[in-house]
Amino acid sequence: MKAARLHNYHEDLRIDDVDEPAITGPNDVIVRIGGAGLCRTDLHIRDADWKEVQQGAGVQFPYTLGHENAGWVHEVGSAVTNVEVGDTVILHPLITCGFCRACRAGNDMHCAAGSFPGLVSDGGFAEFLKTGARNVIKLGPGLEPKDVAAHADAGLTAYHAVKKAAKELYPGTFAVVIGAGGLGHIAIQCLQALTPATIIVVDKSEAALKLSEEWGADETVVADGTQIDKVMEITDGQGAEAVIDFVGERGVEKEAPKMLRNAGTYYVIGYGGALDLLTHTMIFTEISVVGNLVGSYNDLAELMTLAAQGKVTLHTATYPLEAVNDAMNDLDNGRLQGRGILIP
Amino acid sequence: MKAARLHNYHEDLRIDDVDEPAITGPNDVIVRIGGAGLCRTDLHIRDADWKEVQQGAGVQFPYTLGHENAGWVHEVGSAVTNVEVGDTVILHPLITCGFCRACRAGNDMHCAAGSFPGLVSDGGFAEFLKTGARNVIKLGPGLEPKDVAAHADAGLTAYHAVKKAAKELYPGTFAVVIGAGGLGHIAIQCLQALTPATIIVVDKSEAALKLSEEWGADETVVADGTQIDKVMEITDGQGAEAVIDFVGERGVEKEAPKMLRNAGTYYVIGYGGALDLLTHTMIFTEISVVGNLVGSYNDLAELMTLAAQGKVTLHTATYPLEAVNDAMNDLDNGRLQGRGILIP
Amino acid sequence: MKAARLHNYHEDLRIDDVDEPAITGPNDVIVRIGGAGLCRTDLHIRDADWKEVQQGAGVQFPYTLGHENAGWVHEVGSAVTNVEVGDTVILHPLITCGFCRACRAGNDMHCAAGSFPGLVSDGGFAEFLKTGARNVIKLGPGLEPKDVAAHADAGLTAYHAVKKAAKELYPGTFAVVIGAGGLGHIAIQCLQALTPATIIVVDKSEAALKLSEEWGADETVVADGTQIDKVMEITDGQGAEAVIDFVGERGVEKEAPKMLRNAGTYYVIGYGGALDLLTHTMIFTEISVVGNLVGSYNDLAELMTLAAQGKVTLHTATYPLEAVNDAMNDLDNGRLQGRGILIP
Amino acid sequence: MKAARLHNYHEDLRIDDVDEPAITGPNDVIVRIGGAGLCRTDLHIRDADWKEVQQGAGVQFPYTLGHENAGWVHEVGSAVTNVEVGDTVILHPLITCGFCRACRAGNDMHCAAGSFPGLVSDGGFAEFLKTGARNVIKLGPGLEPKDVAAHADAGLTAYHAVKKAAKELYPGTFAVVIGAGGLGHIAIQCLQALTPATIIVVDKSEAALKLSEEWGADETVVADGTQIDKVMEITDGQGAEAVIDFVGERGVEKEAPKMLRNAGTYYVIGYGGALDLLTHTMIFTEISVVGNLVGSYNDLAELMTLAAQGKVTLHTATYPLEAVNDAMNDLDNGRLQGRGILIP
Repeated sequence: MKAARLHNYHEDLRIDDVDEPAITGPNDVIVRIGGAGLCRTDLHIRDADWKEVQQGAGVQFPYTLGHENAGWVHEVGSAVTNVEVGDTVILHPLITCGFCRACRAGNDMHCAAGSFPGLVSDGGFAEFLKTGARNVIKLGPGLEPKDVAAHADAGLTAYHAVKKAAKELYPGTFAVVIGAGGLGHIAIQCLQALTPATIIVVDKSEAALKLSEEWGADETVVADGTQIDKVMEITDGQGAEAVIDFVGERGVEKEAPKMLRNAGTYYVIGYGGALDLLTHTMIFTEISVVGNLVGSYNDLAELMTLAAQGKVTLHTATYPLEAVNDAMNDLDNGRLQGRGILIP
Repeated sequence: MKAARLHNYHEDLRIDDVDEPAITGPNDVIVRIGGAGLCRTDLHIRDADWKEVQQGAGVQFPYTLGHENAGWVHEVGSAVTNVEVGDTVILHPLITCGFCRACRAGNDMHCAAGSFPGLVSDGGFAEFLKTGARNVIKLGPGLEPKDVAAHADAGLTAYHAVKKAAKELYPGTFAVVIGAGGLGHIAIQCLQALTPATIIVVDKSEAALKLSEEWGADETVVADGTQIDKVMEITDGQGAEAVIDFVGERGVEKEAPKMLRNAGTYYVIGYGGALDLLTHTMIFTEISVVGNLVGSYNDLAELMTLAAQGKVTLHTATYPLEAVNDAMNDLDNGRLQGRGILIP
Repeated sequence: MKAARLHNYHEDLRIDDVDEPAITGPNDVIVRIGGAGLCRTDLHIRDADWKEVQQGAGVQFPYTLGHENAGWVHEVGSAVTNVEVGDTVILHPLITCGFCRACRAGNDMHCAAGSFPGLVSDGGFAEFLKTGARNVIKLGPGLEPKDVAAHADAGLTAYHAVKKAAKELYPGTFAVVIGAGGLGHIAIQCLQALTPATIIVVDKSEAALKLSEEWGADETVVADGTQIDKVMEITDGQGAEAVIDFVGERGVEKEAPKMLRNAGTYYVIGYGGALDLLTHTMIFTEISVVGNLVGSYNDLAELMTLAAQGKVTLHTATYPLEAVNDAMNDLDNGRLQGRGILIP
Repeated sequence: MKAARLHNYHEDLRIDDVDEPAITGPNDVIVRIGGAGLCRTDLHIRDADWKEVQQGAGVQFPYTLGHENAGWVHEVGSAVTNVEVGDTVILHPLITCGFCRACRAGNDMHCAAGSFPGLVSDGGFAEFLKTGARNVIKLGPGLEPKDVAAHADAGLTAYHAVKKAAKELYPGTFAVVIGAGGLGHIAIQCLQALTPATIIVVDKSEAALKLSEEWGADETVVADGTQIDKVMEITDGQGAEAVIDFVGERGVEKEAPKMLRNAGTYYVIGYGGALDLLTHTMIFTEISVVGNLVGSYNDLAELMTLAAQGKVTLHTATYPLEAVNDAMNDLDNGRLQGRGILIP
């Protein structure tokens, strides 16, 4: 089968002809990929930013990227009963054990034995992918793999952060979304579906802000240097209860907490930068800073319900698998509108 | 009456003869001070670290320090019904309005109109102090003002942070307390009373660690450079669910998050330093950093229940009010064992 | 001034000419009534169902009914700073102390010294009403007293119950609203605003069910004896996570828990009947039954935000104060569409 | 092997010689029983109280009772990695799937495909028992199967209810435990370990109350008809925040809610009776009634941590397996002190 593989850091992926994965354990599931989302993390991987993690996990090159996968069940192991061949499925991004405390407590993203295909083993930029029965979610008739694949990581991560924030977002509160891109546009829709908060979207791009209004933004703010002041103005000088940051670098991570009111929470999703907060500020304002790592299987199932109900839709651009490097370059250069989806 | 007042930053306090406070509003309460705790924040105030806040609040020098106060009701305004003259009381450190959302929601430390005597108005290093009826807690017969005064801020702050942490501390979890001093020794007792967690105490002083065991520490770790490794060892290489940091400066704030396990929480109480965390670390480990600002009136009432039940006791050293500068110097130079209490 | 007063149980109210209330305490507020909602509880009071509570509180006849009040500030006591004469306000239905634990913890409906005008003291079926400064919520320019008055109890109670339920209502869950009347139609809108749950409305009246769809019902079920089966069908045979019952009598309270799935919660708001549940059922299904008593001041403030944002609107019918008995009869006989509002 | 089996309702169990269970699936685990707890539910099963459930599940007589099991791993299926032959283990009472939402969300007692050995399939009153890998908890060296077996259901159920209650039990609150027997004596110890609440124990037996004090009761009340008044007295006329009822029949379920304060919660664990609550009472007091069904695997793991730490110990009486009917008669007739444990 075809697979888009990384042979060396800092190189383009190559379309290789490789063996199809085979069932080896009773809980294995082979999925025929219908769509695989392209993520900024794929660029980070190519650029060696995850080298340390990959070496720690013993990753051997070449290997196949792709951690946002959806498709159809192609083959199942002897013990699999939750899906059948032919079912349309989306894949939770981790392969999890089901035995550890985290897996049992709704925190399977912290599975003690979790593995992340596309990062530490072969992923979904290919015709087929092997995963475990615990990690497939059966989709209803209305959902196409290519239309939902990006929910497997981008959507899940946005949803997970919004769900945490939702607990504190009662009527009259403000939620700031920084970055109206691949994850941000899902977060806006999730905030709209889950909370009565006033949604303020901050982005550099006026085009993205215009789209944000369609997705549910109540207020939009151009990130032109005045964004903290503008957020303060909209929030009556108090700041927002929640700031959800999908950038997390290039200084945004230093500005974001300044948009909070006392006792507010800064949700970090984008990465690349460093926090710049005095302990004095932490205590005087009693703010919290909360990291966010993808989400749980149940989170993804909930998000797929919202997708099936039409409450959350993805903005995507498709590429054939062979054009993976074009897609990566488009993403790198800001030419990719919406989430890029590779079709094998 | 006598009052210990600050005339200029960086100077010793002076014992001045000043007018007794008088009832001016229907909800005013005048308290005869029985004991006033000395706090590291008093040193910070003297050393001009709160200059900006004080100027913002229009503080006029000289003014009286002291924000950890307990005593007896001396006089009450016309509308006061919750206490009577002669009642033994401890004072919540803020004067709060009772009308704003925060006051009604159990977050009165974020009162929209809150005022903090001892910082922005005359405090309790004096014979009498004026406060509001909302801010006095009536004590039972077994509690003496001088024995509990330090709960008004030190105890309250420790209790408030522990109460937040307690939600995640089920049997088998680990809570690290960094700093077994004025606040830390209360936190240890509160953790013991409120949670089944294994309590690990980290401090530079072996004497403090020895005392910690009496207060309820299950494990003690000398902060000699190996403390992160030791905590990891005790926690089976995973780290602790909660790290409660009463130092927050001199590099401790950089080490503390390294003692956390994935999805753990770092509670910041001590201050003076700056966080040193990459956004990448925040998301990859999904940790949280939580600021802590004193606590609510209800928190203080709960803590006084623990005190009355003998579950939390304070380690104190008393000084006559006239010796306030000796006490401050002793605190500054590490010669003060336990919390210093001034007796007018 | 005019006031509609109850002189004896089981009698019509009389329109009496009485003295206007006067400021006697520093925190008093006199409100000129712009609209006063008529509640089924007013019928219950007239019919002596609250006799025991009223006798316990020492109520003297004749007295003025009316506990759903909104209007304009007419006069304020010397210590009042949160509202000014002329402000448009809605009144929290209790007069609360602001000192007890409940008032400080966001549970002011359980105020240790709370008083409920219209039940135990003169209410708002009059030109003027005296309340306390703590119990008035200032409204924005877009809201008219007569359009929002019914939120003071009907809306607040519905919102409070929905807010409790919302914690468990993630995407894919089901919430059943039993009774699409004065409270139910607000609950539907609140569920829509606060949760992503699928909303199932059960009522005897097909007309009410038709209106429910406009308010946000996803599914409607006629209470014709098949309603439990229908709810089971809609919920894939599992039952709903939440059943919110605005009837609570005439057998509805016996059927309602049968619509729950395992671990679901039955919210009781309507009253008149008795629970019919075996302890064996409670443990085998692990369901919960949750009582609901109006709501807090902050709840009402949140609801007024939803009203100002246009997310919750009331269905009302106005009557002049003099027609109070007509209104009560209409309510009693099912002729009242929407909530009846008396205009003095 | 020997097994104590029920051949017909209302008959004594018989000691039969049956085949040892065999591994048939990759996740099967065969446990050599070291101790099996006897539960009042075993009497209920014998007396046909679970006939409907058993028929629904297609139970074929004769079958082996016993749902509180601990022992040593005897044999494992091909895919089992979490335990090894020889490990000491306690068994979660359900066999759960690990795939459904409940299993992933920490509510595996509501597993969509859960099975309960001892009720609907062969249980642990035998030399060997077959379970699944997901349902065994490995024990540390200090714990013996016969000493902890009763935690598998009695302990778990008590712990699960206490853990729910603990969220509302801050310093100064009261928790009433009704019934200081097999479950109650564990609940008292769990309350002591997890909460700062004042623990009030109500029981008919003065001997049981005396023992309760050793387990951690702060106050004891003889159930002689004055128990509601006594609880009211101890709680300053307000009632308790939590009433945890291990009886749930013979009128206790009618008295229990009367011991609650406003907004308190009644936890139902014992069963046999029927709730006797007006919907009016539910709303006027805003109390909750919460059913409790065993607990989750993680709950049991937490409880085993408390057991290993010596914070919870069981009061037991052992019988050889052959004496199972003596044990059942002793339990039925109140002659059994502590939890009865059968040793094969």
